[in-house]
Amino acid sequence: MSNQLFEQIQQLHLAPLLNWGAFGIEKEGHRVTAAGQLSPLSHPASLGSRDFHPYIKTDFAEMQTELVSDTFDNTDEIMQQLGALSEVLEMNLADDELIWPLSMPPVLPSDETTIPIADVAPDARAYRDYLANRYGRRLQMISGVHFNFSLAPALIARLYDEVYHDQFATVKDFSDMLYLQIAQNYSQYRYLLTYLFGASPITEALFQTDTTNLPDYAVRSLRSSQLFGYANHDLVVSFESVAAYHDSLEQAISKKQLISEREYYGSVRLRSHGHLAQDGVDYLEFRGFDLNPFAASGVTQEQLDFLHLFFTYLLSLPKAAESLTARMAEGQQLNEAIALEDATKASAQQAKMQMLMTNIRQFITTYQLNQRFIDAWTVMNERVNDFKQTLSYRLAQEVQDDSLTAFAMQQARQFKRELTEKPFQLQGYTDMELSTQMLMLDAFQKGLHVAVLDRSDQFVELTYQQHHELVKNGNMTSLDRLISWPLVDNKVVTKIVLANQGIRVPAGAEYADLEVAKRDYQAAFGQRALVIKPKTSNMGAGITTFLTRPSETDFVTAFKLAQQYDQQVLVEEYIAGSEYRFLVMDHQVQAVLERVPANVVGDGRSTITQLVAKKNRNELRGEDHRTPLQNIRLGAREQLILKQQGYQVDDVPMRGSQVFLLQNSNISNGGDSVDVTDDIDKSYFAIAEKVAEILNLNVTGVDIIIPNLYQPYDPEHPEMAVVLEANYNPAMLMHLFPMMGQQRRVTTKMLTMLFPEMD
Amino acid sequence: MSNQLFEQIQQLHLAPLLNWGAFGIEKEGHRVTAAGQLSPLSHPASLGSRDFHPYIKTDFAEMQTELVSDTFDNTDEIMQQLGALSEVLEMNLADDELIWPLSMPPVLPSDETTIPIADVAPDARAYRDYLANRYGRRLQMISGVHFNFSLAPALIARLYDEVYHDQFATVKDFSDMLYLQIAQNYSQYRYLLTYLFGASPITEALFQTDTTNLPDYAVRSLRSSQLFGYANHDLVVSFESVAAYHDSLEQAISKKQLISEREYYGSVRLRSHGHLAQDGVDYLEFRGFDLNPFAASGVTQEQLDFLHLFFTYLLSLPKAAESLTARMAEGQQLNEAIALEDATKASAQQAKMQMLMTNIRQFITTYQLNQRFIDAWTVMNERVNDFKQTLSYRLAQEVQDDSLTAFAMQQARQFKRELTEKPFQLQGYTDMELSTQMLMLDAFQKGLHVAVLDRSDQFVELTYQQHHELVKNGNMTSLDRLISWPLVDNKVVTKIVLANQGIRVPAGAEYADLEVAKRDYQAAFGQRALVIKPKTSNMGAGITTFLTRPSETDFVTAFKLAQQYDQQVLVEEYIAGSEYRFLVMDHQVQAVLERVPANVVGDGRSTITQLVAKKNRNELRGEDHRTPLQNIRLGAREQLILKQQGYQVDDVPMRGSQVFLLQNSNISNGGDSVDVTDDIDKSYFAIAEKVAEILNLNVTGVDIIIPNLYQPYDPEHPEMAVVLEANYNPAMLMHLFPMMGQQRRVTTKMLTMLFPEMD
Repeated sequence: MSNQLFEQIQQLHLAPLLNWGAFGIEKEGHRVTAAGQLSPLSHPASLGSRDFHPYIKTDFAEMQTELVSDTFDNTDEIMQQLGALSEVLEMNLADDELIWPLSMPPVLPSDETTIPIADVAPDARAYRDYLANRYGRRLQMISGVHFNFSLAPALIARLYDEVYHDQFATVKDFSDMLYLQIAQNYSQYRYLLTYLFGASPITEALFQTDTTNLPDYAVRSLRSSQLFGYANHDLVVSFESVAAYHDSLEQAISKKQLISEREYYGSVRLRSHGHLAQDGVDYLEFRGFDLNPFAASGVTQEQLDFLHLFFTYLLSLPKAAESLTARMAEGQQLNEAIALEDATKASAQQAKMQMLMTNIRQFITTYQLNQRFIDAWTVMNERVNDFKQTLSYRLAQEVQDDSLTAFAMQQARQFKRELTEKPFQLQGYTDMELSTQMLMLDAFQKGLHVAVLDRSDQFVELTYQQHHELVKNGNMTSLDRLISWPLVDNKVVTKIVLANQGIRVPAGAEYADLEVAKRDYQAAFGQRALVIKPKTSNMGAGITTFLTRPSETDFVTAFKLAQQYDQQVLVEEYIAGSEYRFLVMDHQVQAVLERVPANVVGDGRSTITQLVAKKNRNELRGEDHRTPLQNIRLGAREQLILKQQGYQVDDVPMRGSQVFLLQNSNISNGGDSVDVTDDIDKSYFAIAEKVAEILNLNVTGVDIIIPNLYQPYDPEHPEMAVVLEANYNPAMLMHLFPMMGQQRRVTTKMLTMLFPEMD
Repeated sequence: MSNQLFEQIQQLHLAPLLNWGAFGIEKEGHRVTAAGQLSPLSHPASLGSRDFHPYIKTDFAEMQTELVSDTFDNTDEIMQQLGALSEVLEMNLADDELIWPLSMPPVLPSDETTIPIADVAPDARAYRDYLANRYGRRLQMISGVHFNFSLAPALIARLYDEVYHDQFATVKDFSDMLYLQIAQNYSQYRYLLTYLFGASPITEALFQTDTTNLPDYAVRSLRSSQLFGYANHDLVVSFESVAAYHDSLEQAISKKQLISEREYYGSVRLRSHGHLAQDGVDYLEFRGFDLNPFAASGVTQEQLDFLHLFFTYLLSLPKAAESLTARMAEGQQLNEAIALEDATKASAQQAKMQMLMTNIRQFITTYQLNQRFIDAWTVMNERVNDFKQTLSYRLAQEVQDDSLTAFAMQQARQFKRELTEKPFQLQGYTDMELSTQMLMLDAFQKGLHVAVLDRSDQFVELTYQQHHELVKNGNMTSLDRLISWPLVDNKVVTKIVLANQGIRVPAGAEYADLEVAKRDYQAAFGQRALVIKPKTSNMGAGITTFLTRPSETDFVTAFKLAQQYDQQVLVEEYIAGSEYRFLVMDHQVQAVLERVPANVVGDGRSTITQLVAKKNRNELRGEDHRTPLQNIRLGAREQLILKQQGYQVDDVPMRGSQVFLLQNSNISNGGDSVDVTDDIDKSYFAIAEKVAEILNLNVTGVDIIIPNLYQPYDPEHPEMAVVLEANYNPAMLMHLFPMMGQQRRVTTKMLTMLFPEMD
C-alpha cells in the first residue's frame, strides 16, 4: 500500500519518529459586544504592544484578535498553550466583551469603511489597507485556524544519511521532495478535512452586499469554498517542484496579481525560515480550517492529531498514475462540492471518504503509530459514517432566523466563563504549581516569550528579545544569590547571621541528648515560655508549647515526644503574637499577610463539622494545593486540638466564638490568610526589609511574630517583632488570593524586576 | 566550701553555664634563622598589611610575630584557630625561617639597638620606641601567651535577674563584683599556675648585659618573676574596686609612671570594651603565661581548660578573712618564690598546692562540671605530685652549655614540619571539607576575618571591615545566582539551555519505559555509540557503554541493568575523547584539568596489586576525601573491569602498558588529575567561558569531552568539544593539588572576587 520511502522507514525502524514533528498554530477571533456586534474598543492596552507581542496580535481589523502559538514537537503542548492564550485574552477583555466563536464574522456594519483596520505598525497597516482596497473589508473579516507542520528532523536526517544521500545531492533536496509530496497529495485529498472540520454553514447579515449568489441552505464550509472563501482568482501556482512553486508566485507578484507571497491564499503554502528557493522548505502552512465553535480554543486535540495523521498518511501514498495537474483539479472540484453540500444531508462522497478512512486506519496499524492517532481517527470516522456528527450539521441545527448569532453568543459566554472561572489557574498548565501558573499567565499577558523547560520541576524560561531568564517555582530566579539557598535552609546559620546584625530571633538550641538539653533548660531559659519540637517537623507533629516555664518532668516528657519524630530536638523560647508573612521584593515590602491557624467561628446553630464544611465551600479552598487555600480537615490531629479546647466535632460553638482546629498557621494546613498590607504599622516594614538586606535576598517571604500590628515598633522593645525565618521561595500565590483583604498581584512585580527594560 | 553566690548557682541549676564563657588568646613568637638567630627578614609580605590583619601581627620587634585569636565561648575553638594561625604563619615564613618556641628570646645581638622595632603604623611605632627607651629592647623581646576570659553572659544575667537585682543597682555593678573577686583571688593563688606552666628556666646569651643577678640554676619561670620578667616597679594598683583600679592607673599615668593603661604589666588586668569606669569590666586579661615549648601552638588544650577551671574556682571561694592587701602581698611573695625555685627539685609549696588541687577537684564534683575539666585537672595534678612532669623541669633537662638553643631549634623544626606537612589541610579544621579548609587558609593569610557558622554544613563567614560574605563548601557564594543551583542540578534543563545557545551536548533522553526507549533507540540514534545509565548513578554502577550501535538484545539487557539502580534511565550518545574540567571564575578559565579514570602503568615486574599499592603511596592519595586524590581500590567493580581487559589482580602488565581499573574518571573514584591549563589549545577556553556565561555562573566547573587537546577547535566540527555538564560547586581543591602538572591556587581568586576592594 505504501511507497518506497515508507518501506525504508519500516526497515530502519524509523516509524516511531512519525509520532513527532513540529507544529504551530494561529487562531483568529473577533472581539464582540454583549449584543454580538463588533467591539468598538481598541485592542486591550493591558496586553502590551502588538509590535512585539509574540502571542496575542491583531489580524486585519482592530477587534480581530489573533493567537499565535510557539512551535512544539507535539500537539498536546499546542493545545495547552492555545488554552492559556485564550484565557489570557478573555481575562483582558472589557467586562462586556466576548470572543466571537465562528469563522464567518458577526453582523457587519452596513458601511464597510467603518470597520476599523488594526492599528498596527505602519508597514503592517499599509498591507491591510491594500487588502481592504483589493478584496473589500468584509471578506477580510473571515477568521480561521492556520496550522504549520514539519516532519521530525531526525526522520529526515536518518533517511537521508542511511538511504537517500545517493539519490539527492543535499538533505534539503530530499526534504523538499518530502514536503512537496505532502502538499501535492493534500490538494488532492483535502476535501476530507473540509467535510470533517467545515463549520461555516451560513453568513450573518451584511457579510455580502449582494447575497443573490449565496446558497439558500446551510453548507459545510463557505469559507473553504473557492466561490465564497478567500481565494486568489485567476492565479495558478505550480506544485511540480519547489522552484516552480516559487517561480509561479514570483511571476504573479511581477504581474501584480499578488502584492507579496503572503497574499497567496492557497490551502497549503510551502514555507521557509530563510529564502524558499535557496534554503528549501522548512514547514508547510495549512490555512483551510474553520474555527470550531464547540471548542473554547476554536480547535480540538483530535483535530490537530488527525491533521498530523493525515499529513503523514499523505506522505506514505504511492506515486499516483495521473498527472499532478489532473489530481489537483480533481481535488479542487471535490473540495468545492463538499464545501457547498447541504450540511444537513449525507455527503455524496461518503463512500469515497469511508474508503480513505479505512486506508488511514490501516496506515496507523502498519506503522504502529501512537494511541492518540487511533483516538483522533475514531472521532473523525464517526463523522464520516454519520453526517450528524459533523460540525456543520450541528451548527445548521442552531440557525435561527438565518443567523447563528444567538448560538454564537451563547457559546462565547460559555467559553468566557470556562476560561476565567478559576483565576488562580492557567488553562493548559493546571498540573503545574499555582505560583508558576500565575507568573506564566502574567508573562503571556505582558508579551514575554514563555517556554516550559521542565514541567514537573516547574522550570520556565522567559524571554524578551535576546534577554533570557529562568524561573523555578515562580520565584526562584537570577535575582537572588546562590548562597541564600543553603543559608535560608540552615535555620541555625540564619539565626546567627540575623542576630549578628541586631535582629531579634527566638533564643534556643538544638539537642540530641536529653541530659544536655535538661541542663541547658535549667540554666539558660529562665522563666521563659518554651516550644519543644523535632528538628524536622511534619505538619506540627511532636511539638509542645509551654506558655510558662515547664516543670522538669513536663520538659522531659515533651522532649521525648519530640524525639519520637527526630533525634534532633529544638528547644526555643516561645514567642506569643500573630504570625505575619512579609513579602519583600526589590528591597521593599510588597504585601503583608496575617496567617491564622485553621479555625471556624460559631454561628450558634451549626456544629463544628458543619462550620468546617461551610468554610470549605469557599472556591479558593481545595485539596492538594490545586487552589490558593486548603480545605480545613477534621482528622485525628484536629480532633485532638478540639479536645484540648473542650470541644467535639458535633458540638455547636457559641455565636461569634472562634474555635481553632490547629496551632500551626501554615496556609497549607487550612489556615486563613488576611492581607494586612495597608493595616499594619509601617514601622514593621523596615524590619522585614532589613532581614532581606542582611540575607541578601531580592525576593523573600519573611515570617515575623508581632503581638500588635497597629502599635508602632519600638527599638527599645525588640520583642515587638521577632523574626522566625525567611524563605527564598516565598509562594507569591498567597498574596494574589488571600482569604480576606486586598489581592496583591505581586507576580507582575517579579516580571518587572526580571525585565526592567520592558517598562 | 563555696560562697553564697555558688549556693544560688546550685539552687537555680545554673552550674551548666560554668562550662561556658568567652575566651581569647594572644601568642607571641620570634622568627629566627636556621641558626637560631633573630631573622633579619621583614614580616612576610604575603601576610598582607599588619594595619588591618586581625590574626597575624607583630609585637614589639619586627620578627616578633603575634597570633591573635577571635573570642569563642569554648576553648576547643581557640585551640583550633590557634592551630590554623600557626600553620598559616609557618607557611608564610621564608624557607629557612622558623618560629622560636621559648618565651625567653634567642641569643640577642650585642648591640641592642640593632634589634629592629616592628615596622607598624606611626602611632604604634611611637609606643614601641617609648618602651625601648624605658625598659630597653632586650626585655621587650620576652614572648608569652595572654589569655582573656569572661563568664557566660547568661550566668550573669540569670543570677542578677533572679537574685542579685536587690543587692546591685545595675547588672554592671554585679558583674564588676564577680570579675573583681576572680582578679583578687587570682593574685593570691596564681603561684599554682607559675608552678604548672612555668617554662623559662634560663636566658640565652646577651639577654642581659649584666648577668650577675641571674640565678645560676634553672628556675621555673624567670618571666613570671617580679625580678626578671617584665614588671612595673614602684607601681601599686588597687583591686579593692573597679573604680579604685581605674583611679590607681590614672594616677600612675598622670605621674608618668605609665604612658598609658596598656603599659601596666600586672598578671591580671580588668578590661572593658568601652570605658572601664563607666561601662564596667567585660573581661579579664591574664598575661602571665610562658610559651609551652612542647606544643606547636605554644599552649595546650589542657592548659586552657585548667585556666578556665581555675578562674571559675576562684569565683567560688568564700570571702577571705585577711585584708586584700595582705592576701595579694602573700600571693606575690609565694609566686616569686615558686618562679625562682630550682626547677629540678620539688617545690617547697607542694603540700599547699596539693591541698589546692584537692579543693579544685571537689569543686568539679560539686558542680558536675564537664569531663574536660577533669581531664585538665588530672594532667596538672600529676605535675603537682611529681615535679619531673613540670615544663620547667623538662626544659632544664635540655639545657646544653647554658643554652636551650639546640633544643629550641629542634622543637621549631619539628613544629614547622608538623604544621606544614599536609598543605591540603588546615590545622584545627581537618574535619571540614578540604576546599573549605583551603579557602579558610587563604582567608586567614589574607587577613580576612573567618567565622565558621556551621561546621558540619561547611558554612563560613568571611569579613573585611563591614563587608560580610557567606561561603558554603568553599565555592558557593553570593557571586552566583540562586537559579543556577536548580538549573545545573537539572541535567535535562541544562542541556536544553546550552543547546538553545548552540553548545554541543550529548544527544539523548530519559526513559522509564523500556518499550518507548527501544522504539526511540531504533529510530533516533542511528549508528551512534551509546551510553545507557541509571538517572542517578552511584559511582558508575549500572552504566553500559556501547562503542558501536548495540544489537536490540544488548540494548535491552543494558536498559534492564540500569533500571536495577533507578527506574529512570538515560540513553545518551557516547562521546569518545578525554574528559576535561575547566574551572571558570569571573568569566575566565582559571585552570584546566584532564581527568583520567583510575589506572596503573605496568613496569614489567610488579603485579597489578603491587602497582596499585605503589601508586596509592602518593601522599596526595587517601581515603574518605581527607586528601586531594583518592586511593585506587581493587574491589569487585575494579576486578570486573580488569577482567574485561583480560587481566587479573596478580597479573604483571607489560612495561609501559596502561591498565584501567574503572571507566569513570571522577577523582573521587581514584582517578588521576593532570593540570593541562598551559597545554590545551586556548580555543577551548572560549567554549567553557560561553557555557559559564549562558548558565550565568561566576564560579563553575565545566566538563567537556575533547578528543585532541592540542588541535584548535573548529566551529564546523562541534563534536570537537562536547559539553557534559557544569557545576555550581566545582571543588576547587582538585586544581590546587593535581597529581601531575602545575598547582593552581584558585582559592585566592575566589577571595579576590568576593573582596575586590582589598586589592
